Amino acid sequence: MPDSLTNISDKAGMPPGTLVHVGDTHEAESRITVIDYSKENIEERIIGSIDEILPCLDSNTVTWLNIEGLKDIIPIESVGRILNIHPLVLEDILNTHQRPKFEEHDNYLYIVLKSLSVENSTLSIGYEQISILMLNNLVVTFKEKKDDIFIPLMQRLKNGKGRIRNMGSDYLTYAVLDTIVDQMFFIIDSIDEIIETTEEHLLVNPTSGSLSAIQQIKRELIYIRKSISPLREVLAAIPRSDSPLIQEKTHIYFRDVYDHVLRITETIESHRDMLTGLLDIYMSSVSNKMNEVMKVLTVFASIFIPLTFIAGIYGMNFEYMPELKWKWAYPTLWIAFILIPIVLIIYFKRKKWL
Amino acid sequence: MPDSLTNISDKAGMPPGTLVHVGDTHEAESRITVIDYSKENIEERIIGSIDEILPCLDSNTVTWLNIEGLKDIIPIESVGRILNIHPLVLEDILNTHQRPKFEEHDNYLYIVLKSLSVENSTLSIGYEQISILMLNNLVVTFKEKKDDIFIPLMQRLKNGKGRIRNMGSDYLTYAVLDTIVDQMFFIIDSIDEIIETTEEHLLVNPTSGSLSAIQQIKRELIYIRKSISPLREVLAAIPRSDSPLIQEKTHIYFRDVYDHVLRITETIESHRDMLTGLLDIYMSSVSNKMNEVMKVLTVFASIFIPLTFIAGIYGMNFEYMPELKWKWAYPTLWIAFILIPIVLIIYFKRKKWL
Amino acid sequence: MPDSLTNISDKAGMPPGTLVHVGDTHEAESRITVIDYSKENIEERIIGSIDEILPCLDSNTVTWLNIEGLKDIIPIESVGRILNIHPLVLEDILNTHQRPKFEEHDNYLYIVLKSLSVENSTLSIGYEQISILMLNNLVVTFKEKKDDIFIPLMQRLKNGKGRIRNMGSDYLTYAVLDTIVDQMFFIIDSIDEIIETTEEHLLVNPTSGSLSAIQQIKRELIYIRKSISPLREVLAAIPRSDSPLIQEKTHIYFRDVYDHVLRITETIESHRDMLTGLLDIYMSSVSNKMNEVMKVLTVFASIFIPLTFIAGIYGMNFEYMPELKWKWAYPTLWIAFILIPIVLIIYFKRKKWL
Amino acid sequence: MPDSLTNISDKAGMPPGTLVHVGDTHEAESRITVIDYSKENIEERIIGSIDEILPCLDSNTVTWLNIEGLKDIIPIESVGRILNIHPLVLEDILNTHQRPKFEEHDNYLYIVLKSLSVENSTLSIGYEQISILMLNNLVVTFKEKKDDIFIPLMQRLKNGKGRIRNMGSDYLTYAVLDTIVDQMFFIIDSIDEIIETTEEHLLVNPTSGSLSAIQQIKRELIYIRKSISPLREVLAAIPRSDSPLIQEKTHIYFRDVYDHVLRITETIESHRDMLTGLLDIYMSSVSNKMNEVMKVLTVFASIFIPLTFIAGIYGMNFEYMPELKWKWAYPTLWIAFILIPIVLIIYFKRKKWL
Amino acid sequence: MPDSLTNISDKAGMPPGTLVHVGDTHEAESRITVIDYSKENIEERIIGSIDEILPCLDSNTVTWLNIEGLKDIIPIESVGRILNIHPLVLEDILNTHQRPKFEEHDNYLYIVLKSLSVENSTLSIGYEQISILMLNNLVVTFKEKKDDIFIPLMQRLKNGKGRIRNMGSDYLTYAVLDTIVDQMFFIIDSIDEIIETTEEHLLVNPTSGSLSAIQQIKRELIYIRKSISPLREVLAAIPRSDSPLIQEKTHIYFRDVYDHVLRITETIESHRDMLTGLLDIYMSSVSNKMNEVMKVLTVFASIFIPLTFIAGIYGMNFEYMPELKWKWAYPTLWIAFILIPIVLIIYFKRKKWL
Repeated sequence: MPDSLTNISDKAGMPPGTLVHVGDTHEAESRITVIDYSKENIEERIIGSIDEILPCLDSNTVTWLNIEGLKDIIPIESVGRILNIHPLVLEDILNTHQRPKFEEHDNYLYIVLKSLSVENSTLSIGYEQISILMLNNLVVTFKEKKDDIFIPLMQRLKNGKGRIRNMGSDYLTYAVLDTIVDQMFFIIDSIDEIIETTEEHLLVNPTSGSLSAIQQIKRELIYIRKSISPLREVLAAIPRSDSPLIQEKTHIYFRDVYDHVLRITETIESHRDMLTGLLDIYMSSVSNKMNEVMKVLTVFASIFIPLTFIAGIYGMNFEYMPELKWKWAYPTLWIAFILIPIVLIIYFKRKKWL
Repeated sequence: MPDSLTNISDKAGMPPGTLVHVGDTHEAESRITVIDYSKENIEERIIGSIDEILPCLDSNTVTWLNIEGLKDIIPIESVGRILNIHPLVLEDILNTHQRPKFEEHDNYLYIVLKSLSVENSTLSIGYEQISILMLNNLVVTFKEKKDDIFIPLMQRLKNGKGRIRNMGSDYLTYAVLDTIVDQMFFIIDSIDEIIETTEEHLLVNPTSGSLSAIQQIKRELIYIRKSISPLREVLAAIPRSDSPLIQEKTHIYFRDVYDHVLRITETIESHRDMLTGLLDIYMSSVSNKMNEVMKVLTVFASIFIPLTFIAGIYGMNFEYMPELKWKWAYPTLWIAFILIPIVLIIYFKRKKWL
Repeated sequence: MPDSLTNISDKAGMPPGTLVHVGDTHEAESRITVIDYSKENIEERIIGSIDEILPCLDSNTVTWLNIEGLKDIIPIESVGRILNIHPLVLEDILNTHQRPKFEEHDNYLYIVLKSLSVENSTLSIGYEQISILMLNNLVVTFKEKKDDIFIPLMQRLKNGKGRIRNMGSDYLTYAVLDTIVDQMFFIIDSIDEIIETTEEHLLVNPTSGSLSAIQQIKRELIYIRKSISPLREVLAAIPRSDSPLIQEKTHIYFRDVYDHVLRITETIESHRDMLTGLLDIYMSSVSNKMNEVMKVLTVFASIFIPLTFIAGIYGMNFEYMPELKWKWAYPTLWIAFILIPIVLIIYFKRKKWL
Repeated sequence: MPDSLTNISDKAGMPPGTLVHVGDTHEAESRITVIDYSKENIEERIIGSIDEILPCLDSNTVTWLNIEGLKDIIPIESVGRILNIHPLVLEDILNTHQRPKFEEHDNYLYIVLKSLSVENSTLSIGYEQISILMLNNLVVTFKEKKDDIFIPLMQRLKNGKGRIRNMGSDYLTYAVLDTIVDQMFFIIDSIDEIIETTEEHLLVNPTSGSLSAIQQIKRELIYIRKSISPLREVLAAIPRSDSPLIQEKTHIYFRDVYDHVLRITETIESHRDMLTGLLDIYMSSVSNKMNEVMKVLTVFASIFIPLTFIAGIYGMNFEYMPELKWKWAYPTLWIAFILIPIVLIIYFKRKKWL
Repeated sequence: MPDSLTNISDKAGMPPGTLVHVGDTHEAESRITVIDYSKENIEERIIGSIDEILPCLDSNTVTWLNIEGLKDIIPIESVGRILNIHPLVLEDILNTHQRPKFEEHDNYLYIVLKSLSVENSTLSIGYEQISILMLNNLVVTFKEKKDDIFIPLMQRLKNGKGRIRNMGSDYLTYAVLDTIVDQMFFIIDSIDEIIETTEEHLLVNPTSGSLSAIQQIKRELIYIRKSISPLREVLAAIPRSDSPLIQEKTHIYFRDVYDHVLRITETIESHRDMLTGLLDIYMSSVSNKMNEVMKVLTVFASIFIPLTFIAGIYGMNFEYMPELKWKWAYPTLWIAFILIPIVLIIYFKRKKWL
């Protein structure tokens, strides 16, 4: 059972707004990275306390604060205090069982979503909650795990190519979302491959293993869909928002990510349809196999049972059985023993059983 | 058949607005608790008559009146008289077969919903109707049963931690709704566990007991969904209401409960999908088992029926059967008796039946 | 095939507005009842001609004209003439295959719906079309059959208890609708019971009778849903209407009936889901039964076919069969005859077939 | 494959607006009928050229121009030229694979829909496209085939009964639509009957013929639904249109036809549900039949295989078989031959196999 | 796996706006065609560099620039530079995994869609992405492959017949869309044919090949639907747009294409329904076949097993078996051997097994 479903009730009974990390503890320590950039300069630092970012806030540069690991709640509390974030939002950041959503607050926007990544080459999908706080000239991202999905984006920032260094925190938010959504295409690709492989197996030799493979893909698709489909509304809402934090020229970028999510959800629907098809193939191949078994039994039984009966007749011990004394009786019978199967085999061939 | 479905017709034929408790009688006596609190003080009392709350109404404190047990209609009538509640609302409070709904009246809001709780460790789910009347500085809750789901909330009120003591009756209403919705996560968790256990059983040894387990979960999900899904509209309607009773700063809290309900309903949909998968596994495992039985029969019959026929031939009593006199006939036949099964077994192995 | 589906084409080809009773003729004669009441007085009469109500129309009393039986079109024509009703409405009243609907006309409102009632204790559901014309101080109801579903309402009017005698024709309309909808809860209750009984039968001894029972309930549910689900729109439209005929204080009552209808339709959806579950149980119980039959056959055949073969060997008549002369051959064979079944039975027990 | 689905690609590649009849050629010649009427007079003529209607256009009478047969495109071109119709509309009239739609143009309204009719007593449904152009005082109808579905309407016009002669071209349009929709009720009725008959056959003796009957009805329902369901939007749009061509007093009539179409589509949905039920009955009756076959086999085999084995034992030729010499051995064995089947039959009766 | 699903993740990790062709490389070289026309003149040229179109842009003629092959990104970059196209649009043009969409920009409109074409006579469907940029007096089309679907349209332009030469770039855009959509009708037609053929095969001789044919059509339909259904929104959005680039008189043409797409999507839904029907036929024909096999086995076994038992009795070697010495015993037994099968055959006939 994936962690996105269990233990949701951990916090039931606590007052709302209590900061406790609800979720699986992946790593003990948080890592806080600050990237502060303008068109000309860029600086990346790993800091120990949130208060170190205070000087960056006043400047005209764009600041990206990336907090990885939610076990230690002190950084989150500091962010809340310094940036004046609503307690319920902080609580949502820590509770990693959130449904993707987008909330507009007075001086910041809050986006929470799931990041999906293929763990290994097998279909083991890793789910991670990522929260994004977008303020004027500042983007704070909260990640559950320490992984490297943001590495290419940071690299691009450092290289200074493309528009990213010329634009504000809204474009950075878009770039973060785009990076997360692009990750999902890898999932789609591997599911494609697995469905294809399973279908080939099914056509060659359907085993009960095929069925449990189908069920496993189905279950993964249920979770993926649950994680991704609310993202559509989130990404449709962002460009519709009239927050001054999002400039009009960035709208087109958010709409682009929205199109990607739409494409992903439609592909997932296709996958579900294809799985139903696989199940049909499996079910009917089981029936076909039984048909084949039955035909073999029927052919054997139908040929030899009558013959055994005939042999049984002349094994009787009656005194008055004239055939027993006939000279040609036994050879004649052999002809019957050969003819009867031939007739039956022709009959079964006509019925396409052989 | 759960009580939420039966005997709904008990009141048919009575004039609307007649106060009769329609539902199952759980306990004879009501228990009326009053909690009266301000930022500084909090007082909890069990009272015998509703009239005792009259002094609390005029003060600036927030009052929570919790009425448990609906058998005795006098308290409800008193509430209706003192607070000037519409007769149809009183009737709805007493009829415990209501669909969750939210009604705005001139000087109060009326919310009715179902509380779900796991009765024991088994999947026996208890349904209870809870009605909430929200007035200025007063919240009245009507519970069908005497249970302890409000105990943690009352404890929090007494501890005075968090925002709750600083805020009005709208926040208290939110806290009550939040408590009820948080309860539902326990249900979701136990259904998760039961589905997981059932799936393991299915893969190891599918019995007809597995099927009835699947059906029982399915039925419970039907009822849970029926109880919870109208709650979405209810909780979406509350922050959209323009009643002066709900302050704008509380909207975010109601939206938070709304998100929880959304998450619960989506999880229930996933559960339904997973149940369909379980049913597929069950159905195909039944087919697979029959396949296996058929194979055993076919192998036994196909091997021994031809052999029996051969033995039958030489059991015939013809006078002219030269083989009977040959010295090596019997050993030769034994070779056939050994070779034929070997050939057939190789054939069946090729067909992957053995 | 219920009458709500057949012969709908009876009127095809006639000009619209032709008054002909399209439907099954239940009774030859109409019965026209007039109840004229104010807060102080109430009078009930059975009249022969619609013209007798003319004096009631001018007074300040509320008048309820109940016409039972639609075979005789004269009363309907008279109502149309006296009250200036649109010909299409009159036609709809007479054609008892209407879809439930609500129409606002200049000086009156027209509501048509289906009344459902359990005919006996069996699941034989009676459908009847009821049309309601609501004018200022006058309500005209048209019933297809002479039955007693309005008796309790009339009794309540005469008793003068409750609000009904203090309020206008809009409240009377509500009371009529409430009476009809309350009737439907009986249907829901009996379907509940039948599903429960069928499920018990299925678990004990599934016969093909169970299947046809399931199909029959399914068919009834299809018709019930078809009759009830358009009622939701009708009842949602009434309080939204801005006709001066409906006072604002009556809105809450219509919304109450609306809630009931919502509850009924949701329960019907649950029933449909439960029926699908029953069908799954039935289908898999049929498969399980076949499995059991096959196991018995396989056990019998697998045990006795090899034994018969062994007996066949020593029934052969070869001259050179040394075993035949051994003294202990026969008892040794008996040991084989006993051991082989034991080994096979242990094998089948391991496979859980016995 | 019905003609509404094939050859749709006939026109692909031609410039839009090219007048070619796309569809099946039913009849070579067109027949053009003109009915010109006012409250006092009515005149019906069959004309050879559209130009003959020019005098009618100026008068105050209402003119109905009915063109049957679309093979000859000259009349359609003339209509387009005289009445100034948009080329795309003319193209749509000729291409008989249109989806039902309603278009408002500056000086006319264009409605296209499918007329369905039962060809014979069998379920052979005829589809025909009917286009309607409605102008001030003029209605032009284009029919694919020469049939008599408009005969009753023309008769009513001539009789002069009802409102039709007093009203304008909007009422005539309504009357035409009403006539076409009323035709569809016959289809519904015959499908009802066929479903009923098929169900009876299924319960008595399910053959594979039943299955193909179910599939055939299903296919017909798919086509019917495809033809009718867009009609809902069409008929909902007409009274909502603010074209001056439709007077407000005619709105109620269009809404009436809309109700009929709603009723038809809902009935078709019920039919689909019922067909699914029939399929379930068929599938499980096939399983039941196999069960029965298996039981017979199992009973025969289980009774006689053990007996044959016993007989086989005493057919062995051992020298030392003491039983062979016992006097009562043979009669004792006969008792076993009788007792064993009795015991087994009781066992099978207990299992309800007999 | 069709190319529209795989390798979508190729670009993940690159900065948005990087021009790389994402898709399958069909052909190395691009071909750029320019058609420049006014009412009087038309000129067609194949050019090597986009800069050659600069003179056309200033004139009053309408210019159609058709770029085939997306491997070479220089032409696309030139188009972007000369016409001032947003980098994200250029990126979308090159990434051939776009979902169909319509975007309004300040001075141009961008439409992207999939073109479907039947590759051969088999059901091998070719997918190709076509992007359309529409400016004032200029239409640029980008095609993935060099094929000839635009040939008939170009021919029509050259012939100068119809409206096309009199109208602007909006009408040309319509004509391009119309050409692409008309292509899709061929697909619909061939799927129709394949379904018909498969159904005939199924009724005559259902093999497991039929099943995989059904699954293949199903998979194709999933892809086709995914490609076509977003086109509905696109084509509904175009006439609703208030861009000055689309004149009001062209709206009716776009609505016409919209109608065609609606018809295609509805037909695809019908196809899906029909495929479900085919699957039902297949599944039940498999069951029927097994039934038939079982009947043959049961008839053979039930007739000969009892007879063999009887023969076995008189093959026993007891000394005291009086029947063995009776003169008429053997002929009597023959009568039994003949009568028993006759009785059983009559019994099986009654059960309709023969």
